[in-house]
Amino acid sequence: MTTLENVKYNADGLVPAIAQDTQTGSVLMMAWMNAEALNATLETRRGTYWSRSREKLWVKGESSGHIQHVKSVSLDCDGDTILLAVDQIGPACHTGAETCFTGREIS
Amino acid sequence: MTTLENVKYNADGLVPAIAQDTQTGSVLMMAWMNAEALNATLETRRGTYWSRSREKLWVKGESSGHIQHVKSVSLDCDGDTILLAVDQIGPACHTGAETCFTGREIS
Repeated sequence: MTTLENVKYNADGLVPAIAQDTQTGSVLMMAWMNAEALNATLETRRGTYWSRSREKLWVKGESSGHIQHVKSVSLDCDGDTILLAVDQIGPACHTGAETCFTGREIS
Repeated sequence: MTTLENVKYNADGLVPAIAQDTQTGSVLMMAWMNAEALNATLETRRGTYWSRSREKLWVKGESSGHIQHVKSVSLDCDGDTILLAVDQIGPACHTGAETCFTGREIS
């Protein structure tokens, strides 16, 4: 176990967050969180991120309905990466793909 | 499928790379790659990263023996995150834990 105080944000106040599907084990996506997004994720148990392009908090699925029920939130050994275990409703990717990596192997 | 030309590096010339274990499905670690590290990973099929603290290329396991045999390299939908499927030899974390997230749930 660890605590929120151990999260190390980067110079922009952000930490990368990886979402993994509890059912399939697939890595669904990686997005960024600021402290507010991380706190919201822990309190609401909905995957919540910081949109760097729109510069605002972003509840995953707020428009598409493809929300993430967050089952656990872990911090890596050096405190600078988050891993979320999520029950993903619908496809995780905005393209409609199951994950943001589906069919995207580099050849 | 996609190609190397579609990788979008950040202002520091880096892209985050998530390593996932092919056997267990566990997310093992997240580290950073520059173009040289990504090319080396694709050519040698050994997980190779850029160490931001040491400012040098870093072959995972070069000192510990805990190398990663890379089975596939995928790029996410917007081109700014890499996902590696790896056969991890030994523990992935420098602490000796199976993954860098093992036992690190935020409570």
